[in-house]
Amino acid sequence: MSVNPATMRTSVLLGKKQLTIEDRPVPVPDPDQVLIKVAAVGVCGSDVHYYREGRIGDFVVNAPLVLGHELSGTIVGVGAGVDAGRLGQRVAVEPQRPCGHCRECRSGAYNLCPQMEFYATPPIDGAFCGYVLIQANFAYPIPDSVSFEAAALCEPLSVAITAMRKARVAPGTSILVAGAGPIGIICAQTAKAFGAAEIIVTDLVPEKRERALKFGATRVIDPVAEDITALHLDVNAFVDATGSPKAVYTGIKCVRPGGAAVLVGLGNPDLTLPVEHIQNLEVCVTGIFRYTDTWPAAIHMVSSGQVDLDSLVTGQFDLDHVEAALNADLDPASLKAVVYPNT
Amino acid sequence: MSVNPATMRTSVLLGKKQLTIEDRPVPVPDPDQVLIKVAAVGVCGSDVHYYREGRIGDFVVNAPLVLGHELSGTIVGVGAGVDAGRLGQRVAVEPQRPCGHCRECRSGAYNLCPQMEFYATPPIDGAFCGYVLIQANFAYPIPDSVSFEAAALCEPLSVAITAMRKARVAPGTSILVAGAGPIGIICAQTAKAFGAAEIIVTDLVPEKRERALKFGATRVIDPVAEDITALHLDVNAFVDATGSPKAVYTGIKCVRPGGAAVLVGLGNPDLTLPVEHIQNLEVCVTGIFRYTDTWPAAIHMVSSGQVDLDSLVTGQFDLDHVEAALNADLDPASLKAVVYPNT
Amino acid sequence: MSVNPATMRTSVLLGKKQLTIEDRPVPVPDPDQVLIKVAAVGVCGSDVHYYREGRIGDFVVNAPLVLGHELSGTIVGVGAGVDAGRLGQRVAVEPQRPCGHCRECRSGAYNLCPQMEFYATPPIDGAFCGYVLIQANFAYPIPDSVSFEAAALCEPLSVAITAMRKARVAPGTSILVAGAGPIGIICAQTAKAFGAAEIIVTDLVPEKRERALKFGATRVIDPVAEDITALHLDVNAFVDATGSPKAVYTGIKCVRPGGAAVLVGLGNPDLTLPVEHIQNLEVCVTGIFRYTDTWPAAIHMVSSGQVDLDSLVTGQFDLDHVEAALNADLDPASLKAVVYPNT
Amino acid sequence: MSVNPATMRTSVLLGKKQLTIEDRPVPVPDPDQVLIKVAAVGVCGSDVHYYREGRIGDFVVNAPLVLGHELSGTIVGVGAGVDAGRLGQRVAVEPQRPCGHCRECRSGAYNLCPQMEFYATPPIDGAFCGYVLIQANFAYPIPDSVSFEAAALCEPLSVAITAMRKARVAPGTSILVAGAGPIGIICAQTAKAFGAAEIIVTDLVPEKRERALKFGATRVIDPVAEDITALHLDVNAFVDATGSPKAVYTGIKCVRPGGAAVLVGLGNPDLTLPVEHIQNLEVCVTGIFRYTDTWPAAIHMVSSGQVDLDSLVTGQFDLDHVEAALNADLDPASLKAVVYPNT
Repeated sequence: MSVNPATMRTSVLLGKKQLTIEDRPVPVPDPDQVLIKVAAVGVCGSDVHYYREGRIGDFVVNAPLVLGHELSGTIVGVGAGVDAGRLGQRVAVEPQRPCGHCRECRSGAYNLCPQMEFYATPPIDGAFCGYVLIQANFAYPIPDSVSFEAAALCEPLSVAITAMRKARVAPGTSILVAGAGPIGIICAQTAKAFGAAEIIVTDLVPEKRERALKFGATRVIDPVAEDITALHLDVNAFVDATGSPKAVYTGIKCVRPGGAAVLVGLGNPDLTLPVEHIQNLEVCVTGIFRYTDTWPAAIHMVSSGQVDLDSLVTGQFDLDHVEAALNADLDPASLKAVVYPNT
Repeated sequence: MSVNPATMRTSVLLGKKQLTIEDRPVPVPDPDQVLIKVAAVGVCGSDVHYYREGRIGDFVVNAPLVLGHELSGTIVGVGAGVDAGRLGQRVAVEPQRPCGHCRECRSGAYNLCPQMEFYATPPIDGAFCGYVLIQANFAYPIPDSVSFEAAALCEPLSVAITAMRKARVAPGTSILVAGAGPIGIICAQTAKAFGAAEIIVTDLVPEKRERALKFGATRVIDPVAEDITALHLDVNAFVDATGSPKAVYTGIKCVRPGGAAVLVGLGNPDLTLPVEHIQNLEVCVTGIFRYTDTWPAAIHMVSSGQVDLDSLVTGQFDLDHVEAALNADLDPASLKAVVYPNT
Repeated sequence: MSVNPATMRTSVLLGKKQLTIEDRPVPVPDPDQVLIKVAAVGVCGSDVHYYREGRIGDFVVNAPLVLGHELSGTIVGVGAGVDAGRLGQRVAVEPQRPCGHCRECRSGAYNLCPQMEFYATPPIDGAFCGYVLIQANFAYPIPDSVSFEAAALCEPLSVAITAMRKARVAPGTSILVAGAGPIGIICAQTAKAFGAAEIIVTDLVPEKRERALKFGATRVIDPVAEDITALHLDVNAFVDATGSPKAVYTGIKCVRPGGAAVLVGLGNPDLTLPVEHIQNLEVCVTGIFRYTDTWPAAIHMVSSGQVDLDSLVTGQFDLDHVEAALNADLDPASLKAVVYPNT
Repeated sequence: MSVNPATMRTSVLLGKKQLTIEDRPVPVPDPDQVLIKVAAVGVCGSDVHYYREGRIGDFVVNAPLVLGHELSGTIVGVGAGVDAGRLGQRVAVEPQRPCGHCRECRSGAYNLCPQMEFYATPPIDGAFCGYVLIQANFAYPIPDSVSFEAAALCEPLSVAITAMRKARVAPGTSILVAGAGPIGIICAQTAKAFGAAEIIVTDLVPEKRERALKFGATRVIDPVAEDITALHLDVNAFVDATGSPKAVYTGIKCVRPGGAAVLVGLGNPDLTLPVEHIQNLEVCVTGIFRYTDTWPAAIHMVSSGQVDLDSLVTGQFDLDHVEAALNADLDPASLKAVVYPNT
């Protein structure tokens, strides 16, 4: 094993649309941590949002911030309490550090920990840099058959897994997914891996609907051409991956008695919902905030071929082109941009 | 046992605000039914709504309708398949007949049966009359210590029990209830019977807030004088018993991470909800539609003294004064009107 | 559509090991029923047990009984209340009639209905005959791509689906299945369809272990050659498909904290279980009794190719050879015998 | 606030039946801990077991051990990260330290943490001493109305709360509790606080049955005089608080379809269970291992008067009489012995 360098190149967001490259010290692992040489980092909508707006809701970029929280890499250092046998392992990273002891952590909802330190969320730095630290048990080994790109995209896959769990998708279930962007596409695949029998995807764009059919959708609908609520879809579950007020409203109305609606897409802080439908059919409406205990399932889905993440990569960038990576979504054909900090 | 009469006096709603008394034949039980001599019938907001508006949403009074679905009485006839030993039993009635075989019934959600026949919901007649039929296992015997009034009000108590179940109220839970009308008051009592440690009730009217404190509330709040969301109530559960857009919106914002909001009050078919709060805290928002399997618990709560329904009765009426009973709510001091069809 | 005949050939069990063929009238559907011309009937261990022992526990063959409850066929008659458009449909049959109104039915556990009428369980006749009746909503249409054999075997697949639900198998789960007979093999496939990542199957017979590897097992173990509890399998779930006291005991000891053990195999009415392990690890031990709401999921699993039932058929028999079909299991290479009553 | 002493008197178990008093240094809180001056410590069956046998299963007293894990006291010191305003608070103590980061902790089952440090379990010392440390959020403030004795007994109450949760006790439920010792008596009270309508307690001893009737039981049964399974109790839930093979076996047979059996009493590592009943009725059998998130509910139950713990105290001892406290159970009239280390 070669010696790790003392410094690393780091892409830093200084403020709205202000990116720079800095040399920063390679961090040193705490006793329960591992040091990871970053291999691949997916670009998420939240990275783009911080870059363009300088904030997401109450989270404001007041100080220099490193973006990037969908990542994979290789363990190149271990803390005093970690088995040195892990050195050299290829891993997917769960990019969060819950406190482990608050009310939410104790209940198993560690994603809701108020003291959470989450990558690329002010003031915690992310992974657009050479090396990062994570507690050892959040660095999950991946088989050789899983690429670093797919390992990085286990993060959005974890979002989809959480959505499926909340939506109570199980073998035989029917589900409606609004939106055929990256999350919608991964949700369609994940629904299939959860055994869903009917996977209906809506999107305004014909090409995106076509793509959805290749990634698990059993039916696609143009929400402008068709009045979705008139179709009586009667699905067990609805997952929104758009944040669009109309998509959310009509999607909920498609849910059958006792079904679930899970709002994943971000948009307005307030939305008008069909409360009479929710009441009369006892639909449960909820949202998701990150994830708990998803990486083992995600890695299995990828390594078993149930979910194809590699095909989602439509752009590849080195650290000097993070700005281009963050703007890749301006091309409607783009699905996922990936940054390789050590290339 | 005396012979039952051939006819009975019946209060019939002919159309909006048109009530009349008719003589109708006493019905004959099917093999699985019992004939009940009606003792007491509570007046529900839905009865008032049908009376004043001639409809509730899609349910329209197109033909004469008998109102009243909160009822108790005495078994005075049994179908061929029912134990004759039940004659003379004092009973509380679950006023619905699900099909038992549809998708919803098979799943245990018989309240959502699309073929449901529900008392006092067009075209099914209710209980403002001398005698009614119900399948034998929906006529629940009550102990002598339970009054006919309390037995009738096991119906709104069933609504509250369903709300508590959906809200996952358990020993030690904190709950916010919006509204100190009949349902809000029964919810407060029921929350206590479920073990809730903190029961916060909001109402605009000082007298109603006072009353809530006598019926289980541990704290009351004036939602005009105080900015409820600024109080950081951080409750496990919120139950709305108002239908008010503002109460629903602010109530949901008081729910802690992973908590539940249950919308019981009826109002606008659409409402603006704080979706960002729902998403970031993974709050589950749902409603309730009637009930399943609540009468045994309701009767236990009443007979054990955990819930006091008798004190809710603020008006008593015979069949000739059903109109007065339906207008009793115009007096703000009114809580529950009860009709005695055989008096 | 041709006219149905007046009588049908029927294989009747008169008593222990006494089978005969009778001509019986073709039954006439009740308003909610369909008449099915039976295509294929799988032979179940319980059929064999009734044939060899004349009883299963408290269920005794006191009167002539028609065996066979794993069946498919074609709708050739409909009751007055059933859409005539269903005539000609190829269907898989859920072979039970719950009452729909008892405590268990109302709670959704209709499989536990004390008034259940179940095919081939005294005194209810089964499907080793030309035609049978079933309520219309328990005759599930199958796509052309699903064979009658596979449709019949949706019954044991329903057992496996129920076991997976009780075992809380979900994407990423690890599971241990004891026994590689028909139910064990179907459980292994079903576990995979539910997303299980690790599917360990034990069996005493090398050929059966080999076969398990072709049907979803990721690892097989010889329980005689290896001390299973010493392997620290630490699985989320254990499903027993043997009824063997040792398999059950050791299987439960392999379950991780908070996991589940589901006992499907029948054997002794009493068994010695590792209670200290159950207590210290809070393992939930339970069993299954038939199924609720499984056919839609089963048909999806088969038609999507997730579960292969056709390959399980190792013997085919007409109605004159039911005795041979019931003895097919004496050949250890046998997996599933199928009877074709109309051949 | 007076200064804490440097040393404290400590009752130490050196080996089987070997107790001594030592002077030990008063410990110093870590940043997240508080120092508690111990007020009252209940004697638990496990303390007695360690004293008499020197071990419980795999936990062996190989080194000096301080017993006592049911405790209350006053905060007299705080770690650097704890609000000094907590000094002087009267508290009930949850006597365990989970790691917060393992698979079980992350899932919410922190009671099953394999790295758990639990009071009075080798090699972790307990509370038969002047002062102890606990992490700040496991020291729960109690109102003035709650005695130190009741606060200490929130520990066995937490066992009962956990049993009720696992048994799914809710308003209207029926429950059978085997054994009217301390845990059985607390379970009966707790079942009532959870809303159980029918609480049946069995015990061999007439005086204990009498006592159960004062503490929540609605019916008591002598399991020798009556054949319990012949009574068709048909309860929702069974909780064993005896460890007796016969009580466990017959209790499980009293559970209705879909009900639960929770084994709390410790005894043989293996027991014969009625597996046919478990399978045919889909009963869930499980055990409990300590508790998670119970103290807030426990303190509410006590302070609201729903559960009476003070009346359970039948013996009071100072630190010089720990041996007598550990032998108090030899008197059949004894229920709970309490040790006061600072008296």
